[in-house]
Order: sequence, then structure tokens, then C-alpha cells
Amino acid sequence: MARADGRSDDALREVRITRGYQDWPAGSVLVEFGRTRVLCAASVQEGVPRWRAGSGLGWVTAEYAMLPSSTNTRSTRESVKGRIGGRTHEISRLVGRSLRACIDMAALGENTIALDCDVIQADGGTRTAAITGAYVALADAITWLSAAGRLSDPKPLSCSIAAVSVGVVDGRVRLDLPYEEDSRAEVDMNVVATDHGTLVEVQGTGEGATFTRSTMDKMIDFALAGCAELSRMQAEALAAPYPGELPGGAA
Amino acid sequence: MARADGRSDDALREVRITRGYQDWPAGSVLVEFGRTRVLCAASVQEGVPRWRAGSGLGWVTAEYAMLPSSTNTRSTRESVKGRIGGRTHEISRLVGRSLRACIDMAALGENTIALDCDVIQADGGTRTAAITGAYVALADAITWLSAAGRLSDPKPLSCSIAAVSVGVVDGRVRLDLPYEEDSRAEVDMNVVATDHGTLVEVQGTGEGATFTRSTMDKMIDFALAGCAELSRMQAEALAAPYPGELPGGAA
Amino acid sequence: MARADGRSDDALREVRITRGYQDWPAGSVLVEFGRTRVLCAASVQEGVPRWRAGSGLGWVTAEYAMLPSSTNTRSTRESVKGRIGGRTHEISRLVGRSLRACIDMAALGENTIALDCDVIQADGGTRTAAITGAYVALADAITWLSAAGRLSDPKPLSCSIAAVSVGVVDGRVRLDLPYEEDSRAEVDMNVVATDHGTLVEVQGTGEGATFTRSTMDKMIDFALAGCAELSRMQAEALAAPYPGELPGGAA
Amino acid sequence: MARADGRSDDALREVRITRGYQDWPAGSVLVEFGRTRVLCAASVQEGVPRWRAGSGLGWVTAEYAMLPSSTNTRSTRESVKGRIGGRTHEISRLVGRSLRACIDMAALGENTIALDCDVIQADGGTRTAAITGAYVALADAITWLSAAGRLSDPKPLSCSIAAVSVGVVDGRVRLDLPYEEDSRAEVDMNVVATDHGTLVEVQGTGEGATFTRSTMDKMIDFALAGCAELSRMQAEALAAPYPGELPGGAA
Amino acid sequence: MARADGRSDDALREVRITRGYQDWPAGSVLVEFGRTRVLCAASVQEGVPRWRAGSGLGWVTAEYAMLPSSTNTRSTRESVKGRIGGRTHEISRLVGRSLRACIDMAALGENTIALDCDVIQADGGTRTAAITGAYVALADAITWLSAAGRLSDPKPLSCSIAAVSVGVVDGRVRLDLPYEEDSRAEVDMNVVATDHGTLVEVQGTGEGATFTRSTMDKMIDFALAGCAELSRMQAEALAAPYPGELPGGAA
Amino acid sequence: MARADGRSDDALREVRITRGYQDWPAGSVLVEFGRTRVLCAASVQEGVPRWRAGSGLGWVTAEYAMLPSSTNTRSTRESVKGRIGGRTHEISRLVGRSLRACIDMAALGENTIALDCDVIQADGGTRTAAITGAYVALADAITWLSAAGRLSDPKPLSCSIAAVSVGVVDGRVRLDLPYEEDSRAEVDMNVVATDHGTLVEVQGTGEGATFTRSTMDKMIDFALAGCAELSRMQAEALAAPYPGELPGGAA
Repeated sequence: MARADGRSDDALREVRITRGYQDWPAGSVLVEFGRTRVLCAASVQEGVPRWRAGSGLGWVTAEYAMLPSSTNTRSTRESVKGRIGGRTHEISRLVGRSLRACIDMAALGENTIALDCDVIQADGGTRTAAITGAYVALADAITWLSAAGRLSDPKPLSCSIAAVSVGVVDGRVRLDLPYEEDSRAEVDMNVVATDHGTLVEVQGTGEGATFTRSTMDKMIDFALAGCAELSRMQAEALAAPYPGELPGGAA
Repeated sequence: MARADGRSDDALREVRITRGYQDWPAGSVLVEFGRTRVLCAASVQEGVPRWRAGSGLGWVTAEYAMLPSSTNTRSTRESVKGRIGGRTHEISRLVGRSLRACIDMAALGENTIALDCDVIQADGGTRTAAITGAYVALADAITWLSAAGRLSDPKPLSCSIAAVSVGVVDGRVRLDLPYEEDSRAEVDMNVVATDHGTLVEVQGTGEGATFTRSTMDKMIDFALAGCAELSRMQAEALAAPYPGELPGGAA
Repeated sequence: MARADGRSDDALREVRITRGYQDWPAGSVLVEFGRTRVLCAASVQEGVPRWRAGSGLGWVTAEYAMLPSSTNTRSTRESVKGRIGGRTHEISRLVGRSLRACIDMAALGENTIALDCDVIQADGGTRTAAITGAYVALADAITWLSAAGRLSDPKPLSCSIAAVSVGVVDGRVRLDLPYEEDSRAEVDMNVVATDHGTLVEVQGTGEGATFTRSTMDKMIDFALAGCAELSRMQAEALAAPYPGELPGGAA
Repeated sequence: MARADGRSDDALREVRITRGYQDWPAGSVLVEFGRTRVLCAASVQEGVPRWRAGSGLGWVTAEYAMLPSSTNTRSTRESVKGRIGGRTHEISRLVGRSLRACIDMAALGENTIALDCDVIQADGGTRTAAITGAYVALADAITWLSAAGRLSDPKPLSCSIAAVSVGVVDGRVRLDLPYEEDSRAEVDMNVVATDHGTLVEVQGTGEGATFTRSTMDKMIDFALAGCAELSRMQAEALAAPYPGELPGGAA
Repeated sequence: MARADGRSDDALREVRITRGYQDWPAGSVLVEFGRTRVLCAASVQEGVPRWRAGSGLGWVTAEYAMLPSSTNTRSTRESVKGRIGGRTHEISRLVGRSLRACIDMAALGENTIALDCDVIQADGGTRTAAITGAYVALADAITWLSAAGRLSDPKPLSCSIAAVSVGVVDGRVRLDLPYEEDSRAEVDMNVVATDHGTLVEVQGTGEGATFTRSTMDKMIDFALAGCAELSRMQAEALAAPYPGELPGGAA
Repeated sequence: MARADGRSDDALREVRITRGYQDWPAGSVLVEFGRTRVLCAASVQEGVPRWRAGSGLGWVTAEYAMLPSSTNTRSTRESVKGRIGGRTHEISRLVGRSLRACIDMAALGENTIALDCDVIQADGGTRTAAITGAYVALADAITWLSAAGRLSDPKPLSCSIAAVSVGVVDGRVRLDLPYEEDSRAEVDMNVVATDHGTLVEVQGTGEGATFTRSTMDKMIDFALAGCAELSRMQAEALAAPYPGELPGGAA
């Protein structure tokens, strides 16, 4: 049974990475996985949270949110509800944890990088798009910090980080699910990996269904190949010169 | 003393209006006043709030928010603070009130249109840009409702709504202030007007300074001329065919 | 068409200003505009908010609230709701901004004056009554600080501040609207002015109706005359000796 | 050792009860125990809370709050904190419970009476003043309901309710403590009683000290005599005709 | 009329006190009054709250909560509601106040002891069981502090504290009410007393009924006898050696 | 390098499962993995959440929380903070999702089972212990519902659910980590599986380190063997008759 957009089961949607999307943050990337669009900004703040002060180590934190107008049916703003929901918390924590895996905190020095991942349009896979885009924004922020002479060590990034979703739909393992597939998937997995092919995070869930060891193995195969492809695209995007003038706002 | 960007005192910044920016809402407009960029989405919801149910009348509501990465220095998310600040409340109320001035609620029928104005990049005048963009998104949502046969009367919009800021900077009355001027203005005024040249809302404030009746008169002159110019741009933008396919998500 | 209480269109309601209403705050004024009654207290606190510390400048802040029993139909307490509503935020900010226009923060020195405006009974125009009363409480607090030798300069007040509402009701411009008129006004405007006849704040709104430039001009005329009258009453009230013993509680 | 105001140990402060203080609520009483002043309003609402609907029984609820300017040193508004403190909760519950002891809920019918006790000025004993004043406001609200023909039975009040504080100060049992005594009392007790001399609530606390059975007995003696005196004053206040026109607002 | 469990009116339920229930806190006691089970933990924290710092005095604070599964019908978690209810606040304050009556804060030195009373199973009298158990946990925490050489004076406890409920059920005064009696009691009283027979706190309430002076006297008689019995059980429990190894976690 | 407690790398800690721990809920289990102790209660509520009403389907929901005294250093209550933290949200969602995998919602009928997992003592692996204990409580609640004739179908459970943690510590893959190992693990994984050996959820994380595909495979091997062992213990515990009388409270 074919996919609605004609892709093969192990193919990514069309991916676009636009750097320098905003003028003020040190890194600002619009990442698109098909119709899913996430704005990933990396803001540099001098100093670190109180519990880390004086350690000589930096910190990377992340917040994920969805615009009310990003979803098929308008969703209520969490600021209006007065509390952040469980899903938002979970994804914010996942993005932060994933990006911290590629950075040497001692090399970063006592700087904090805040990664804001705001979903402009949601069509499945927003958290994996967020991680993939946030890496590029983080890399630009690092370059900016380096140019400003604010790093303790010139190379704080040990690898790159990308992420993709994979699931079981219509009984078949499929990569990079759009909303239409995601909403009826029997198993849903998000995989975060480095450009070295090692794993950072694996989150696989069967709600209403369970899955065998061999299905899991095939999902991991698809996801690692997808992440390798995304790593190549990130490297290509970062190889280009920074579009427009360098941000000065965050100085 | 000249303005930093070389504009004359009564000139607007470059304005761009991009319709169909998102795929799901019935209207979605990216409006730009110079570097200020606001995403205005109009989402249609069947029915009206409880206090209005059964009246046969529709409702238009608005919410304004800033992305943390939109400001020169990263700002804290209001969802994280757990409460919406005074400024956000004030602007959300202003946007809703302003847009309700152009619409015949009986013609709208028992539908609610939620206007979400999310600031992507802030450089002064975000609230007036939000109102100006929200009108275009509202007009597209009305067209969408009309096409869906869901209006009680085919012409619910009696006029168009635009808004602009005006202030006293360096002792001179100036139109459409960027952040650099706004932050040191002696008097700050926001004016909302219709394409008929009538006023919807006037909010003028002197913090630390007061202003004379004649200064006020000149500010109103500048603002009404600026709004007339914005009304022409809105009409021009709306005269073009809808870009891409019509949204189906809000149906 | 005559007004329900027989006033001419440009007349104020009966205004009463009672100083020394409470014993503890440095200034405490009960102000009455007809049946509208607002208790305005000025409490002196040593020091200023953290963001202003060390500047040598003082600070004036304001909070507005309504007793649940002050409104025609009992209203829910905001402390019970757990959040302050948009209208309350908006008015608190307006009162603070307005009163800061008359005071030289350097002369005040690093003292904070908190203005609490609590509505005891609401019958339209509570925010303008609050501003008018808060000025008198502020003036008493300044006298108290001066007597205590805590001012950097003996004359921190450069002018007095008064405010009044004006609107269009039954097609006529009218001053100082009671609830019965306010609730059906086509245009509603609040004007804050100094005893020098200059403007501090103008907020005019047409909900459901728009208004012409000439209507606006007439509203400003009425409001400036009303504020001049209120300024005279404030001066008269402050000319009398302080009723009872001077407050010691805030020392 | 004499009391600062010259009273004997078993004497009340000067008590004043002013009915009809506000125009809108069905009952509105300003009660003063010396410098302590509490505004007690009784608002009538048709119907009862959901958990009681259809029972044929009425409900009486109470909320206690302090104006920020009522205390010697300005206190922070609970609406600003976003939560109601423990002390406020405790007193609100005490007031409601106490007043429910005098009313036949079946006779009240499915009406709710909300008692708002807002402290205008605090000088010790605010909770007992609140209960004493709230009874008079409640009685006026009952008269109002009766006149409106909305009671199931004409006499829902079975007794009157008054309250007073008593404590051990300087080693002596004393009645009706002002703040100066209350703040250094070794034992502090609040007693709520009926005009029949029976008890409704007894709350005695020794913080930092404990007290003997015989001290407790003497405190109860003083408090019951004080409550009897307050009951007489309440009856006297209620015997006078309602000042001004009857409230129509709550109808 | 006999009690459901066959006890005489002045008898306690079976009481069990289990020390060392948890491994980490300096004191941890499971107290049982019949089916009522409360886990009382005393955690030692170095330093005192900011308002007390530098005074040389220690502090004791308490928090009471119920597991959702502890009540007959599952109750909603207060963390989920986002606010602590009035009853919880009231009891937390009562427990803290009661336990502070037995301790010399100067002898404690600048240490804080946090008493957490979590109800595992509720069958009436949870607050009095909490106080009774918290005393034992507090005593163990004091022993632990003493062994660690962190007390300013070796004997900070001047007495022991116990508490019991008493009420009027079926027209009879009865001690230590289980839920089945408590829920239909005409009068409900909680009494906190020391092993010297003095009173710390008396809270008596008649909801829907009032009570005479002589009933009150009899309730106090029963309660003081019950507390004396509980004091003996506490002393006996504390006379045994500490079960298992001494906690090291709180060091 | 040996483990502190002498276990082999693939061995579980001592596991104890105590059914009928509380009297009121339909299922109540104290589960212990070494020093980790979690109280898992399953409360039956008639009906389902509004969004599911009328579907004929049941619902299972879960809430996880830690007693303040359960952790090595006392933790602040989330009810006091006024918000539930990200970790708590994440685990509550995980527990609910995992348990829903074993139940046929149509067979359950329109009943809701609320699973409360309250950590009494934390020593690593609290979430996996919670899932393992919650299954047993759920099974008892199902038996109770069946006895009460309230199931649409007598066998709503299709499998059993158990969970265990596995990680990389000191460079070695190890099963069921206590806090001492967990806090320094390079990779941390939680695996939820059925007694059929299929997977329900896999969550693997490397913070600060990444892991290879082959390490992941070995972790899954250990975890599946651990879950199989836990499934046997659950079956054994459930094979015994219910201790004490059946709960009646939740009826």
C-alpha cells in the first residue's frame, strides 16, 4: 500500500533549512520537513543558571511551543491556560537533552544558549524537525560566540545532531511520518542520532499495540539512515556563508 | 535632525503584506513594517462563547504574543511564567476591539473568528502592524466563510481597519517609529482608523513628559494620513487572488 | 435629550475629596464622583525595585482593584480566580503612568510610593476617579516624606494630575459618564491632564462605532475643561490642614 | 498593669455598626472595633452551587480579604501573588461556618448569600469584627429577600452571631485585643457565640506558650460576656429603619 | 447507644507508632489511629528561612497532605489543581504551630526541621494523628541532630505534644471519632496538649448546631485524658532503640 | 568491577509485591525494588472523561508523584510550587500509556480506572517500579469490577505489563539501577514489555554520552529478560487470594 505523497517507506519528506531567519538571535533557522515548519532560534546569554555558576561550564537549554494557528484545528495558548502541558514539557526536555549531547560545556565556558523551537506549522514530526533545526541554530551561535572571542576553547561541538520519526503504519515500517500517518500509527518512534551514527535518544511507543524485537530493529535501521541523510543536509547548509549581516543584538 | 533610516517625518517604513502564509487557518498573513514582522492568523470556529450563544450574533477575539526570540534581548515565555503580563493583555484587548469595529456581528452569524497575532520579529510598532495584518487575515476568513455558505449575510465587513504609531522624538512629530525611536520618544500614540477616515481608537501617552493640544492635533494628522496609505495597501493585497489552494483545515 | 441626573452635557458629577481616610498610609484619600467611590492610598516604602536600585531615582507604582461588592452584580475576586484580568492590568498601568508624569524621580530619591486604588462603589468612571484621588494621596505622601527629611529635593511635584471620562451618548458628547450612560456609550474616552492644561494620556475607543475627527476635538474640549475644574478641587482639598494626626505607620 | 487605652481587662473597644454603607448589595455594613474597620457586604445570588442544586436548601458563603493599605506596613495583594494565603483561607472558612450556624437553609430556599468581609483598616481582631458585622449584613439581606417574597419560610434566622477575641497579655486575661496587644499575646483565642449564650466556635492557640485549663475557663468567661454585649449592639443597630432607599441592584 | 466498634465513649482507637519507617529523613514515623494511617517525616535542613537568618534561632515547619487514594472516594491531587485548598492550609498551619510549642528555638540553633505529614489512609482524625506522629518524628530528628553535634543546647524539647479529636455524636460526647462518626457529628473539636496536661490548641466547631458551656467542659475533660494516654504511648515508643541503622541521608 | 550490592550485571534487586495495602481503592499494591518503594492504587470511577462519553469504551489514567520525604534530600511539594514539573508529567504519561497497552477498552465498558503511583521511598527506578506495581493494582481492580458485574466483557486484560531500567555504568551494561548507579550512568534506558515478550515502550537516553547500536541491542536483551522475570512475580502475586476483605469503598 503506497504512501499518500508517493514516497517510499524509507524516504524523508522534502527538507529545507533556512539560516538567518531572524535578525536578533545569534542563530535563527527555519527548518521544514514537508509542510512542518519550525523556527529554531539560539540566543546567547552571558552567565549560567545559579546552580552551575562558578563551575566554568556552560549550559544549553531548550523550549518548544506551538503557535495556536500552527495546528489543523486552532489550539489554546499555554500562556492563556496558565500552565505548560505535559507534551510540551516532555518535548522541551528532549530537545535540550539531545543538543547537550554534542557540546563540550567546558569549551563553551560560562555562557548559556537558549534554544527556542516555535512551531509555525505542524504536520507531524515537529519535535524531530525542532532538534534538527536547533542543531544548525546552535552551530551558528557557536560561530558567533567564537567570533566574539567568548569561548574557552574554539571547538565546543564534537558532532552534529539530527532526529527523525519512524513508525508502523498500515502494518509497514515507515520513515518521517506526516500527521495523516502519525495519527493512525500503531507504533511511533523518535530517534536522535549523531553524524557518527551513534544514538543519543530512542523513544518508541506502542499505544494500543505492542511491537516485536524485529520490528524495533527495522525501525532503528530506517531511522539511522534518515538521520545520516539529515546530517549531510545540515553540513551542507552550514557550509554556506551566513546570509546577511551577522546578528549584533545578542551581544 | 534626520531619521536614522532617512525617512521623512511623515513617512511609513516599507510595508509588505503576504497572504496565505500558513496552510491551516482560514486567513494567514505575514505583515512587515520594516524589520517588524507579525504573523496574523484568523481561525474560524463554529459557535460563539457561552455568554453570546443563541443571540444569532458572531464574535471576533484576538490574542497577541511575542516569540521569545523576537526581541533584541530574548524575553521569557509567558507560558513559562504561568501568567500573561499586563502589556500582552492590553494589546490583545486593543486588537480585538479594533477589529470588531468593522464587522457586522449579525451578518457573521454564530461563528467565532480568533485572530492570533504572533510577533516573529519586533522593531517597534508591533501592535499597529498586528492590527493592520489582522484585518487582511480577517477579510480572507470572511471570504472563506462566504464560500462555505456559512454567513448570515454576504457582506459583514463595513470598512477596513489599519493602525499606525506616531510619536514625538527629538522634539519632532514622527510617524511609524522603529524601536530605536520608540524607546526614547517623549510622547507615544497609537491610532486605529478606517478607510473612511474615521477613528476607532486613539491611545496617546506621555511618560515623563506631557504634550500640548496642538502637538496632539499634529500627531492625529500624521496618523490619519498613514492609516489612509495602509488602507490602500490592504486593498491592493486583497485584490490579488488567494495564493495557493484555499485552506480546508478549519472547516 | 436630557441626562438622567439633570446635569448639562459638560458638567461633572458632584465630587468629594476626603483626606486622611485611613490611619496607616502616608496618604489616604476617599474620592467620590457621584456614587463612584474609590479609596486611594499612598504607601511609602524605603528603596526602589531592584532594576532601579543605585540610580538615585525614586519610583511610583499603582494597583487598581474592585471590591466584589462594589459592582451592581457581585464580581468574583481576582485573588480567587488566581489571576489578574486584562482590564485590571490595563487600569493599574494607566494610573501608575499618569501619576509618574508629575513627579521628579531624582527629587523623590530612592523611595517607592505605592498607590493602591480600591473601588468601594462603582458607578462609571472608576479609573478617572482613581487617578484624581491618587494625585491627592501622592501629594500627602510627598508632604509626609518631606517632613521626615527623606526627599533629595523639597519639590518633587511639577504639576497636579486629574482625569475624567467623556463619551458620546445618545449622539451627544457628554462629560463624566455614570454607569448608566457608560454602558451604552458609542464612544468612550478617558483623558488625563495637568493643571497646566497639557495632556498626559488620551484613550478614546469606539466599540461598534467609529468617530470623526471633529467629534474627537469636541471630546477633548470637554475633558480639558473638566480636568481644569478637578485640578481646582484638588488644590482646594490640599490647601486645608491634614485631618487628625499625621500617619506614623509607614515610617 | 493597665492597658494602653485605659480599658479594663474585660471591656470591649468602642464598637460602631453602620448599615447601608454601599448601595448595591442587599446588606452592607461597616463595622468598627476601635480602629479596626471591616466592610461586610451580603450579596444575594439566585440559585445555589451545583453540588447543592435541587435540594431546596440555600447556601451562605464568605470571603475575607485585607486591602493592601489596611495594615501598618503595606501588604502584597493576593491577586498579585496569584494565590490566596493560608490565613485568608482559614478566616474565610471560619466566617462562613460561623454564619451558617444561625440560618435555616430550608427556609432560605435555593438562594445563595455571599458575605464579603474586606478589611479597610486593621488593628487586631479583624476576623471577629468581620463575623459580627457580617451577621448584621446577613440580617439585612434576609429582610430584603423577605420583602422580595423569595424566602421559603419567613424566619430563617434562629439566633444572632457575634464574635470577639480574648487573650493572655502581660500574664492577664484580656478581651478584644488591639494589634499592639495581639502581637505579643501568649495565648490568643477567638470565640463565636449566639445571643442565646451558646458557643459556635472556639479557637484558642498558644504559640510559644501553653495554657492551663483554668486560664482557658477564664478566657471563655470573658468572651461569652463580650459576645453578649455585641449581640445587644447588633439588635439595637437592626432595630433602626434601613438608612436611605432599599438596594435594588442585587435583584 | 453503643459505638460501631464497641469502644466506650472516652476510649481511643487502637494506636500504633512505627519509628524508622523511611530510610532518608532524620525522623520517620508511621502513626495509626485505627484505620487512619499517617506517615510523618522530619527532615533536617541546615539554615533557616531568610526572615529568620542570623537570629541564632531555629525553625520548625509542617506540611500536611492526603494521597488521592487515601480517601473513601478518590480525591483530586492538589498539585494537579495547581493550588492548595483551604483545609490543607489550615491543617498544615495547625501542625506547625502545635509542634513549635514544645521546642526551644535557641537550643535548636539555625536548623530547620520540616515535618511532612502525608495521609496514607484516612478514617477520621488525620490531623490529630499527624500531630501525634510528628512529635515522635521530631524527637528522633532532635536525637539525630544531637548525635551530629549540631544543637546549640542538648535539650531543646521542653515537653511532648499529642492531639486527639472529640465530638458530640448521637447526643453524646465521644473521643477519637472515626470517619463514620465524624461525618455526622454535631460538634467537632480538636485538642492539642502537652504531657504536662497544659493546652496548646483548642478548636471546637458546631456546624449546624451550637453547644453549651457544659458540653464544652466535658469535651475538654475527655480530650485531656486522651492526650495523656497518647503521651504515654509516645514516651514508650521513644524509649525503644532506633530500629535499623541511623539515617545518613539528611546529613 | 563489581556492583555495590554484589548483584550480577543482569540481576534484578529483591522485588516484593504487597497487595491490599490500603482499604479503600479497588486495587492497592506496595511494590518494592530494593529500597525503592512505590504505592500503586487503582481507583474505579463510574463513567469516562467527557471527550470519551457515549463511546462505550473505558479509560485508564495515571498520576505519578513523590512524597517530599521520599528522596535523599527533601524535595519541594509540587502542590506548594503550584505546578507539576516536567519530569512528573513525563512519567505520569508514560505510566498511563503503558498500562493502556494491556486492556481492551470495550471490555472495560464506560468505567475509568485511575492509577495513583506515589513514591514512598526513592532509590532509582521509581517509574519502572510504578508500572510494575500499577499492573497488579489494575488487575485487582478488574477483578473487583468483574465481581461487581460492571464489565462489558469478563476478560479485558490481554497481557501483563512490567518495566525495568537498564543502563551503562562504569562502561558495563547493567540491569535495574539503584540511585547510586543511576546518577552516574552514561546511558539510561527504561523498557516496558508484556509477558508475551513484546515491547510497549523503549526510552533510551545518553546525556553527555552517545551509544552504539550494539550497546543498545545488549540493553534490550537485559531488559527483556528482567521484564520476563517480573512478569512471573506479578503472576505469582496475583495467584494468591486477596488479603483481607474486598474493598467496598470504591463501589
